[in-house]
Amino acid sequence: MKTIGIKQSGGSDQLYIMERDKPELGKGNLLIKVAATGVNRTDILTRERETDEPENVRLGVEVAGTVVEAHNDSPYSVGDRVMSLVNGGGYSEYVTIPSDRVMRIPDKLSFVEGAAISEVFATAYQTLFWIGRLEENETVLIHAGASGVGTAAIQLAKQLKNAHVIVTAGSKEKLDFCRNLGADVVINYKEEAFDEVILAETEGRGVNLILDFVGASYWEKNYNSIAMDGRWVLIGTLGGTKIPHFDIFSLMRKRIQLTGTGLTPRSDAYKAALSQELITKTKDLFENGTMKPIVDTTFDFEDVKKAHDYMEANKNTGKIILTL
Amino acid sequence: MKTIGIKQSGGSDQLYIMERDKPELGKGNLLIKVAATGVNRTDILTRERETDEPENVRLGVEVAGTVVEAHNDSPYSVGDRVMSLVNGGGYSEYVTIPSDRVMRIPDKLSFVEGAAISEVFATAYQTLFWIGRLEENETVLIHAGASGVGTAAIQLAKQLKNAHVIVTAGSKEKLDFCRNLGADVVINYKEEAFDEVILAETEGRGVNLILDFVGASYWEKNYNSIAMDGRWVLIGTLGGTKIPHFDIFSLMRKRIQLTGTGLTPRSDAYKAALSQELITKTKDLFENGTMKPIVDTTFDFEDVKKAHDYMEANKNTGKIILTL
Repeated sequence: MKTIGIKQSGGSDQLYIMERDKPELGKGNLLIKVAATGVNRTDILTRERETDEPENVRLGVEVAGTVVEAHNDSPYSVGDRVMSLVNGGGYSEYVTIPSDRVMRIPDKLSFVEGAAISEVFATAYQTLFWIGRLEENETVLIHAGASGVGTAAIQLAKQLKNAHVIVTAGSKEKLDFCRNLGADVVINYKEEAFDEVILAETEGRGVNLILDFVGASYWEKNYNSIAMDGRWVLIGTLGGTKIPHFDIFSLMRKRIQLTGTGLTPRSDAYKAALSQELITKTKDLFENGTMKPIVDTTFDFEDVKKAHDYMEANKNTGKIILTL
Repeated sequence: MKTIGIKQSGGSDQLYIMERDKPELGKGNLLIKVAATGVNRTDILTRERETDEPENVRLGVEVAGTVVEAHNDSPYSVGDRVMSLVNGGGYSEYVTIPSDRVMRIPDKLSFVEGAAISEVFATAYQTLFWIGRLEENETVLIHAGASGVGTAAIQLAKQLKNAHVIVTAGSKEKLDFCRNLGADVVINYKEEAFDEVILAETEGRGVNLILDFVGASYWEKNYNSIAMDGRWVLIGTLGGTKIPHFDIFSLMRKRIQLTGTGLTPRSDAYKAALSQELITKTKDLFENGTMKPIVDTTFDFEDVKKAHDYMEANKNTGKIILTL
C-alpha cells in the first residue's frame, strides 16, 4: 500500500510516497481503508525530529475511512464509516485501529469532515474539560482561535458549557471567523495588548481558563489575564519555552493550576476513553449542524509537501486534510 | 475579652495580650469560648506583613472550644464541643463562626487535640484530594513530613487511599515519627539526594503527587522525582520562590499539573465545604484512634511569643497549640 515516509529528518522536501505492507488485523481491531487524513503540527515535529531510523517514522495521527475488515469481537462491521486517532501512520492507504477508540462519522458529514474531527476536537475536549475543568458560564481565553484546535475549542466551550469565549488571532478575517463560530470577544494580538482588553472585558477579574499554544512570548500577558483559581493549560510552544524570571509565588498568589499536556503520546486507554466521551457529547450537535468540523483546504495525498508548507505558513483557518 | 495583637509588624517581640470587645453573634453563627488555638506559619506571615493598621491585625486561623451562644437557625447547641477554621482572630477568648464551617470534636479527643485538626488536616485534605486528585495506591512525596500538615498528610494519604507514602525530613527522630504514622519510605534530606532515592524506590517511574512546602531550593529534585502525569502542589516556599531557568516544555514533557494553593484566603463557602467533607471522611478514624492529631507542644496563651519562636526554629513534630 501507499504511505508517506521521510528520507531523513528535516524540511517538507524530505517527504515522499513509499510502499509498505498493508497492516494486519489484530484482536479487537478494525482495518480501515483511509479516505482522508488530517495534517497536524505534531506531524511536522515528527518529520523534523532527529532519528537514526527514518524508514521507521510513521506520519499522521488521525484518519477517516471505511471499515474493510473487522475482528469478530468488534462492534463495527465492514462498510461502516468511521473516524479515529491513530498512533502514527495515518498518512496511509490502510490503518488498523482498536475498536474502542473508533468513532462513527455522523451521517451528515463527509470523510473530509470526519478527518477534521478526531485530533482537534479530542485535544480541545481534553484541554477544556478534563484538564481545564471548564464550568458552565466561565470565561475562557483561546489563543490561535482560528487554528484547528482553536476552532474546535470555541465551539465546544460555547455549546457544551455556554462559556464566555475570548479569542486571539492575527487578522480580521480569522477573528470574524471565530466570532461566527461563537466567540464573544475577539482580539487582534498584532494591534492590541490582549491582557488589557481582557481585564477591561472582565471588570478586572480575568479569565478562568487559558488554552495556551504560545508559551514564553505570552507568559506575562497570560499571567495578567488569568483570574484567581484559574487553570492555564500549555498545549503548544509557538512562542518559545524559556521563562527568564519565574517566581513560583505568582502561582500561589492567584492559586493557578498550570498544566502541560499533549495528546499524541497518551496511552491507548486514554485515547479510547476520550474519543468515546467526545462523540457521546457531540454526536447530536454534529448531526444537526450546530457544531461543525472546520476544514480550510484539502490537498491530494501526493501533495503532502504543499500541505505541510501551507501549515507552516500559518495560513489556515481550521484543518488541512489530505485525501486519498 | 483577651486577644493577641501586634504592636507593629515584625518579630515575635511585637506580640502582646490586649483587650477587645467580645464579638457579637450574627445570623447562622455560633459564639465559641475558645479552649485551645493552633499556631500556624500563616500567623507568622501575618505578624511580619507590613501594615499601616497594626491594631486591626487578627492572628490565629483555627480554634477548639465550647458553644456558648447559638443563633436559632444553627444545628449546634450551647455546650457542644467544636473545632473550626476561623478567618483570623483565633488567638482570642471568644470567636464567632458560621455554623456550616464548624466540626464536632470527636468524643475521644481533647480540646488541645481538636485545635490541632482544622488547619493542617483541611490543608492536607485539600492538597491531596481536591487539588492533587490522589488515587488509590498512588505514590505521594510529602516534604516536611514531621510538620503539622506533613503529619496530617501522611495519615490521610495512607488511610484514605492506601497510598505509597514517601517523606523527607531533617532528623532521624522526625523520620522515625513519620514512619510510625504510616510513611513507607523516609529520606533524610541532609544526608541523601531525595530524587535519587525516589527514582530507585519507584523503579524510575517517580511519584504521582508532590506536596511541596519548599519551592525553589528543591525545584530540580522535585522535577526529577515526579512521574508522567504527576501533580505537584505548591503550598509553601520555605526554600525560596525564584526559579532561574524555567522551561515550560519540562511541564509538557511530563504532562505535569503544577498548582499553587493556600487555605487561609479561601472563601467561606470553600472552607465550609472542605471542613464538612474532611470530618465526614475522618470522624470514625479519629474516634477509633486510627487517625491522630499530632500535638508537639502546648503553650499558655500568655506565652505566644515562645510558641512563635519555637515554630520559627523548626523544632516541632506536629502542632503547636496555645491553651486558654
